[in-house]
Amino acid sequence: MTTIPLPAGLVPGEGQFTFTSGTPLTADPALSRAAAWLRGTLLPATGLQLPEGTGGVEIRRVEGLGPEEYRLTATADSVLIEATGPAGAFYGAQTLRQLLDPAAFRAGRTGERVWSVPAVRVADAPRYGWRGCLIDVARHFLPKNDLLRYIDLLAAHKLNVLHLHLTDDQGWRLEIRKYPRLTEVGAWRRESPVGSIVHRTFDGRPHGGYYTQDDIREIVAYAADRFVTVVPEVDLPGHTQAAIAAYPELGNLATPLDVRTEWGVGQNVLNVSDETIAFFTDVLDEVLELFPGEYVCVGGDEVPKTQWNESVPAKERIRELGLRDADELQTWFMRHFTDYLLARGRRPLAWDELMEGGLPEGVTVAAWRGGKCAALAARSGHEVVVSPFAETYLDFRQAEGGGEPVPIGSVTSLNAVHAFDPVPGGLTEEERGRVLGAQAALWTEHIDSPRLLDYMAFPRLAAFAEAVWSGERDFEDFLGRLAVHEKRLDALGVEYRPAAGPHPWQRRPDAPGNPRSRAEIDGKLAAWTANLRF
Amino acid sequence: MTTIPLPAGLVPGEGQFTFTSGTPLTADPALSRAAAWLRGTLLPATGLQLPEGTGGVEIRRVEGLGPEEYRLTATADSVLIEATGPAGAFYGAQTLRQLLDPAAFRAGRTGERVWSVPAVRVADAPRYGWRGCLIDVARHFLPKNDLLRYIDLLAAHKLNVLHLHLTDDQGWRLEIRKYPRLTEVGAWRRESPVGSIVHRTFDGRPHGGYYTQDDIREIVAYAADRFVTVVPEVDLPGHTQAAIAAYPELGNLATPLDVRTEWGVGQNVLNVSDETIAFFTDVLDEVLELFPGEYVCVGGDEVPKTQWNESVPAKERIRELGLRDADELQTWFMRHFTDYLLARGRRPLAWDELMEGGLPEGVTVAAWRGGKCAALAARSGHEVVVSPFAETYLDFRQAEGGGEPVPIGSVTSLNAVHAFDPVPGGLTEEERGRVLGAQAALWTEHIDSPRLLDYMAFPRLAAFAEAVWSGERDFEDFLGRLAVHEKRLDALGVEYRPAAGPHPWQRRPDAPGNPRSRAEIDGKLAAWTANLRF
Repeated sequence: MTTIPLPAGLVPGEGQFTFTSGTPLTADPALSRAAAWLRGTLLPATGLQLPEGTGGVEIRRVEGLGPEEYRLTATADSVLIEATGPAGAFYGAQTLRQLLDPAAFRAGRTGERVWSVPAVRVADAPRYGWRGCLIDVARHFLPKNDLLRYIDLLAAHKLNVLHLHLTDDQGWRLEIRKYPRLTEVGAWRRESPVGSIVHRTFDGRPHGGYYTQDDIREIVAYAADRFVTVVPEVDLPGHTQAAIAAYPELGNLATPLDVRTEWGVGQNVLNVSDETIAFFTDVLDEVLELFPGEYVCVGGDEVPKTQWNESVPAKERIRELGLRDADELQTWFMRHFTDYLLARGRRPLAWDELMEGGLPEGVTVAAWRGGKCAALAARSGHEVVVSPFAETYLDFRQAEGGGEPVPIGSVTSLNAVHAFDPVPGGLTEEERGRVLGAQAALWTEHIDSPRLLDYMAFPRLAAFAEAVWSGERDFEDFLGRLAVHEKRLDALGVEYRPAAGPHPWQRRPDAPGNPRSRAEIDGKLAAWTANLRF
Repeated sequence: MTTIPLPAGLVPGEGQFTFTSGTPLTADPALSRAAAWLRGTLLPATGLQLPEGTGGVEIRRVEGLGPEEYRLTATADSVLIEATGPAGAFYGAQTLRQLLDPAAFRAGRTGERVWSVPAVRVADAPRYGWRGCLIDVARHFLPKNDLLRYIDLLAAHKLNVLHLHLTDDQGWRLEIRKYPRLTEVGAWRRESPVGSIVHRTFDGRPHGGYYTQDDIREIVAYAADRFVTVVPEVDLPGHTQAAIAAYPELGNLATPLDVRTEWGVGQNVLNVSDETIAFFTDVLDEVLELFPGEYVCVGGDEVPKTQWNESVPAKERIRELGLRDADELQTWFMRHFTDYLLARGRRPLAWDELMEGGLPEGVTVAAWRGGKCAALAARSGHEVVVSPFAETYLDFRQAEGGGEPVPIGSVTSLNAVHAFDPVPGGLTEEERGRVLGAQAALWTEHIDSPRLLDYMAFPRLAAFAEAVWSGERDFEDFLGRLAVHEKRLDALGVEYRPAAGPHPWQRRPDAPGNPRSRAEIDGKLAAWTANLRF
């Protein structure tokens, strides 16, 4: 058994079930999506029609399992998937596909083959309800079809949240009907840095693109068909230079800005006027139309306070409202949007920097700055999604040595991702219960193509999936299963990082990075979080 | 009716056929692939299940139509597709999809919608049996999934040949079991030029990638499911520097070569030794295993004779064999492979330069150097596939002015592609019958990403499809239909060239081109073909 993530419970049996051209498939009507997915996926690769009928594969509804839980029983005579909810049935079907030859993951037949699965009893359910991956489509736009492909890849690894980082200084990727300049102006930049920004080299090549509202509806529906919820992020009030370039009245400066062409934290943030709040309320109105999921991320990360500390209107706001400082002004500003979301039955998600000025009620914290932030948020009664950057930021390099493309941050090895435990130490059981789960993050400053995205994401995202689904900790066992799983990735056309290091064409000698040691990263983290008030 | 390509015959009716969630679909077993494709394509976008049953959509087998011919009759009560062969039924299904709202081209639902098609009678068949597109995956590798997507795009435009240019000086993209260094060494180059090679600027970024044999099997099967035949090209004896870099003994020099990093015609060609002939016979053995289609392209284009004219072994061959010159030596060399293919029931395809030393028996000519070459080949009794570079090379710029990305060649406007007529003037009816059809060509020196490939391919490939399928010449009418067709392309995520010119992010100020006038191109052509002997 080489499935990834490893199922919670697994008992090998004797013999195998062999599919024939006439093997029937039947499903409870409530679980029919799993059957439709299985038919649609397996037919091109295997030629198996799986016609309606009994006596072959059955997807049966049972009472009492969790929404994502399933059982799979394969004998020499039949395959039975049991689930209470459609997501559980879908994950059972995903496991069944992994029990077949890796060629089942292709989009076309590769020769005559006996399609069989080993006899087995699987009883499986996830450790965490939030098993996510952030994709930054702002720094480098990911065309719609590539994003749809990533949704398939997430689902194949039993991940269920796609956090879509749609807006940033370097690009605004979401059509907003009321404010067309957000994409007309904000969806492209003049050029991009080559390698780390410390080298001050630029490519002179414009970069851009955006999703139309119909694209988003399609993406959301496609994801929902695969039990992936799309969590949109409109990052406020920092990381907004693309929006300010489109509508200069949103900023603090008299002179217009370009869409940012540098990486790193920019000084340009939104002003705190009523008009700016109204503008982004309009934006969120359209976001809520498009994204039916419960959670909406409003950012709140990396907001330099320089402009507010120097801005007369910002200083007046602070005085009028009796606030202590610009940190609290940020919380005041953000509360408009978190309250707005709560009033509409949504749950606001925000990055942990928002703790610096006090967390608004009802905010779920996306804790990226290590376990301390996650623990603080959970202790203060907030839900937490953890995404510690030293362990789950997949833009960080995968190994030491000069071969990795655009090395930044510390080394986030496959082993470290596999060993990742979402729950920080020292929490009570109640506090631990507030940790919804975790997400990996694919920030794309240095990931300028879908091919490089594959390289940075895999195989680490497979290890991450195991950490959040099964919490299995046997790395050697994982590596053994990974050897087969890589054949599945090959079949899916995923250009993962080979264990021996990058293919020559995956290297970036043209784009030097800025690698750091883990001690440097930890030091940075300690400094950032030293002043957290609770 | 806004279908592209325009059907040969079309009579609008009264009213429309509206699909409901229970609309049944039935198909003659011999035509079931069209039904499976329709179900699989429409379900995610529309939610329509199209269950088995009578009284809704029927795909009926009739006698006497051509293999790609179909009739489609939609009334208020039913939709009937009639065909004799599965390809015809498939094209009927493709037309049916175009009769629906463009949202039917998406991979997910975009809201509640009434799905209906206008009442109509269509009687349709293609003008040419060879309706192709060459994609050069050697200069820039196109990852497997992107290639599969292109196969869908070809099929959506009723194109039926994918000419896969797999090997060239700058990269070898096909795994050959017997000669692993072809991909270990030959599948990547150190860097690529930025813009036209005349500017002598390089990017310092390695580029590479290749298809495994299973990838190729998958691609071929995926294409066959959509009635697209993949014609592989292994380009001989020029355009072989990547192979020579991997196996220096294939070349004429004492010193080893790198995989070429410059564009343009290189001097390094294969030597004419028995060992080299044996090597490529081995290569073709594996090619024939992988590609079941009738036609196999063995290149024969742009072979500088400098090295042969200076090489002692080549000069000895010429003398031994009593040949006139190096042109005839090339024909002698190529005849090994064309005879090899003919002996195995295949049809060799070769570029028209092979005429310079005399065309071997049984060669089908890929005529890229204008109508003169096509006419000469047809007159000499050879089959011809035309692909005149000034009209069908889609790497040439789409408009005058500085905005087009990496402008090269002359302007190949949408209008010119739409007006393209495959058959050169002055042929007898018998000679005209030897023109199998035509293909557009996406050479990728300056197309370094799937996004730019979209830009260069579309909408011109839609115009090309109309030229070879329907031969419709009313450009204004085409433009009217294109306005709707662009919404289909939007739904498919195709980043086509907007009529008003490139989006800012589709420009390449970093990569200056080398634009020529049509007069310069025509002059070049005349000089090249002045000495053709027949």
